[in-house]
Amino acid sequence: MPSLAYDPYVHDCPSRQLLDRIGDRWTVLVIGALEDGPQRFSQLARRVDGVSQKMLTQTLRYLEADGLVLRTAHPEIPPRVEYELTDLGTSLLEPLGALLSWAKDHMGEVQASRDALASAG
Amino acid sequence: MPSLAYDPYVHDCPSRQLLDRIGDRWTVLVIGALEDGPQRFSQLARRVDGVSQKMLTQTLRYLEADGLVLRTAHPEIPPRVEYELTDLGTSLLEPLGALLSWAKDHMGEVQASRDALASAG
Repeated sequence: MPSLAYDPYVHDCPSRQLLDRIGDRWTVLVIGALEDGPQRFSQLARRVDGVSQKMLTQTLRYLEADGLVLRTAHPEIPPRVEYELTDLGTSLLEPLGALLSWAKDHMGEVQASRDALASAG
Repeated sequence: MPSLAYDPYVHDCPSRQLLDRIGDRWTVLVIGALEDGPQRFSQLARRVDGVSQKMLTQTLRYLEADGLVLRTAHPEIPPRVEYELTDLGTSLLEPLGALLSWAKDHMGEVQASRDALASAG
């Protein structure tokens, strides 16, 4: 069976909406945080400084529905729930890591451009 | 002078907001479209199928303010305005291209995961 050709440049292609999903700041930060292995909700909440409980819950649900993150509830007392990257999620580490690095490395230049614009009036 | 260390994992670091900006679907598509060289507004609007005039205008303004895109108004009759990537914008081609490719290549798997969830009820 030939695979469908997805193209985010086409208005109603679902891959355009997927682009929103994977480019979302919380997705980028959560996927990046899971690079180190399985983590509990509270660990992720600490790592992704400032994320609200609601937003982290929603992000994890999306990631799970899209097959990027696996949620495992360990039958213990108290119950322990962990999140980890699937193979598909792991395949996102490289592109999203590159995006994170770019933001870190070039924020200074972007800020300089904004400052120049502001002082130009 | 030592450069500041930006970190998108820190709540109020400006690089986190920059991550939103560069991960935005319109940014990804416009930067990708400019890979082929300078383009006019109307060319970009056609290439980024379905983008509204307002959204494309706003995206280009942000990209210009952040130093990623250069806007040149050629003194001709009728006036010709072109947009092209700066060196900084060009440095984004690789990470954003990787994101675009990921969305294209893996949309099928994401869809399969969503379908499985839907049929599981």
